[in-house]
Amino acid sequence: MKLALDDLVDFARGAAFLGTGGGGDPYIGRLMVENVMRAGGAIEIIAADQVPDDALVVPTAMMGAPTVIIEKLVRGDETGQALRRLERILGRKAYATMPIEAGGLNSMIPLVVGAQLGLPVVDADGMGRAFPEVQMVTFSVYGVSASPMTIVNEHGECVIVEARSSHSTEWLGRVVCTRMGGAAHVACYPMSGRELKDYGIRRTMSLSLEIGRAIRRAREHSEDPFEGLIRYLRSTDHYRHAQVIFDGKIGDMRRETTRGWAIGYATIEAFAPFTGTMEITFRNENLVARVAGKVKAIVPDLICICDRETAEPITTEALRYGQRVKVMGVSVPDIMRRPESLAVFGPRGFQIDEPFQPIETLF
Amino acid sequence: MKLALDDLVDFARGAAFLGTGGGGDPYIGRLMVENVMRAGGAIEIIAADQVPDDALVVPTAMMGAPTVIIEKLVRGDETGQALRRLERILGRKAYATMPIEAGGLNSMIPLVVGAQLGLPVVDADGMGRAFPEVQMVTFSVYGVSASPMTIVNEHGECVIVEARSSHSTEWLGRVVCTRMGGAAHVACYPMSGRELKDYGIRRTMSLSLEIGRAIRRAREHSEDPFEGLIRYLRSTDHYRHAQVIFDGKIGDMRRETTRGWAIGYATIEAFAPFTGTMEITFRNENLVARVAGKVKAIVPDLICICDRETAEPITTEALRYGQRVKVMGVSVPDIMRRPESLAVFGPRGFQIDEPFQPIETLF
Repeated sequence: MKLALDDLVDFARGAAFLGTGGGGDPYIGRLMVENVMRAGGAIEIIAADQVPDDALVVPTAMMGAPTVIIEKLVRGDETGQALRRLERILGRKAYATMPIEAGGLNSMIPLVVGAQLGLPVVDADGMGRAFPEVQMVTFSVYGVSASPMTIVNEHGECVIVEARSSHSTEWLGRVVCTRMGGAAHVACYPMSGRELKDYGIRRTMSLSLEIGRAIRRAREHSEDPFEGLIRYLRSTDHYRHAQVIFDGKIGDMRRETTRGWAIGYATIEAFAPFTGTMEITFRNENLVARVAGKVKAIVPDLICICDRETAEPITTEALRYGQRVKVMGVSVPDIMRRPESLAVFGPRGFQIDEPFQPIETLF
Repeated sequence: MKLALDDLVDFARGAAFLGTGGGGDPYIGRLMVENVMRAGGAIEIIAADQVPDDALVVPTAMMGAPTVIIEKLVRGDETGQALRRLERILGRKAYATMPIEAGGLNSMIPLVVGAQLGLPVVDADGMGRAFPEVQMVTFSVYGVSASPMTIVNEHGECVIVEARSSHSTEWLGRVVCTRMGGAAHVACYPMSGRELKDYGIRRTMSLSLEIGRAIRRAREHSEDPFEGLIRYLRSTDHYRHAQVIFDGKIGDMRRETTRGWAIGYATIEAFAPFTGTMEITFRNENLVARVAGKVKAIVPDLICICDRETAEPITTEALRYGQRVKVMGVSVPDIMRRPESLAVFGPRGFQIDEPFQPIETLF
């Protein structure tokens, strides 16, 4: 996969779509990557298969509440510091970095790190979407530990978490991240190339670029961008069940920055032919969409709120009263729907008292 | 200094006196040391002068709210783990451990660590009393950093804090400690023998033993234990200003376990010849004692609430309505009263809007 400066707008848009409300602001993510590219930083994206089985891969990301991340500026080298500190803890050099999740910011951060440290970035991640908690990745489902995790702030301070489980890494790391002001830079899930290949969700950076392009091209051809997007998604293997599940105007909203996340809900008043009110609850990411109490889409499937004219994805921290939006429901890769995965990031992982229902059974 | 099994009751009592309400429960501290001594652990206490200038000294302690520490049992090897992990971070072996503060628990913890790991324990600490925050030690006043600090819990999980200042080490470490359940085990302030000798408060372990003995011997001779204690303190260099500043019965109390500490106040209704009500505010340790709004003793001088018959020190978490107590005010070593020290742990360090007034000017 090649990524040119001109691709960044499409790439950020597509990543934000997969971010399903979370994963950070795509504008900030794009500015950060533009910055390193304009400064001459070379970005090398490699396929998972190019990573030797015994090589060390270290994902990098920002952790925190997206409501904070849009206000708290970064210095720029924090995430690279987190990776370097983790290397020293492990006594090994990283072969590559990669995103832990897909999102407007968190698909970009590893590109910044890669360009700054001269590391390739693997075209893969740990969920093919975004999730709010550290343990909510395929790697932890299959036994790769999030620990040791390094957490770095804008002062160059570092906290290293060595926990007994990925869940405990989240528990301890979240409060550090909150104490650092609500957002911080992390390196975690150090893993072998073999583990990456066995459990990673592949080609999600390419997918982000293609999603962003499909939306732009439909606009350029005066086509409904949702039609262009759905046509593209149906051509993919994993995200082929895709549909507009609601159309309307944002009404009530509540959003709190609390316990380290942006938590809340938005209601959407229907435009015909849809009827009633959709309520979407979120914790950084959109978790469940209901109309009159009935589930229309639920984690880990994607619930994407987009501008109803342009199909531009809207992250949860950018939702506002009065926005006219369409909501898309999209399936996720099969590995994300296995029972062991659903136990970690299915509805129960979020204390939602509903069974998982594949989006294609709800259309 | 020699410490036999038979000395532990005296030693714990004296350490609790210097703990000035905090520093942890002396009964728990004593049980832990008895345990390692009965299991054959040898305790070697050395003078600060015996430590080579270039040797590494690593203080060890428990951190948290004493209200939690009396309920949350320890496994026993956590503090030693914290020291060992810090050694690996530094790439150096510790020559000795030592207390960071004097207190019923925190004077004992290094003895446990020393016996378990075969390290001598230095007869010194960083304040000659107890304080609630990590940066409140002479070492940080004179530029020794609290970081890196290792924080270990009962699961053997470790969080390593590498902060830009001792104050920031406290800020980040406190929330980890709270997240670990309100109490955890730490190793911090790695320093050279030279730094220890320059900034440490010396012989505070010996002092604890002597204080405990003075109280016991007075009881054994049917003397007022406060008289015996005051006579001994007046014979010391640093703690020579010592007096009973109030006598009465505990009335109102408030105690919250919040933000990682036990915070609150106790009021004491006077017995003649004292009059009025003394109010003592505390954050783990007693901070300021007032009668009718007038300061009678204030940090960093010692405010020690003791049983009025036996002079047994009462920690803030053990204060109860109806207890009959005497309050002692005691001076601290001169290094603790210098302007640069008062800036860190004088009244302003606790957001108390009063100037420091030496206890001897208030008698």
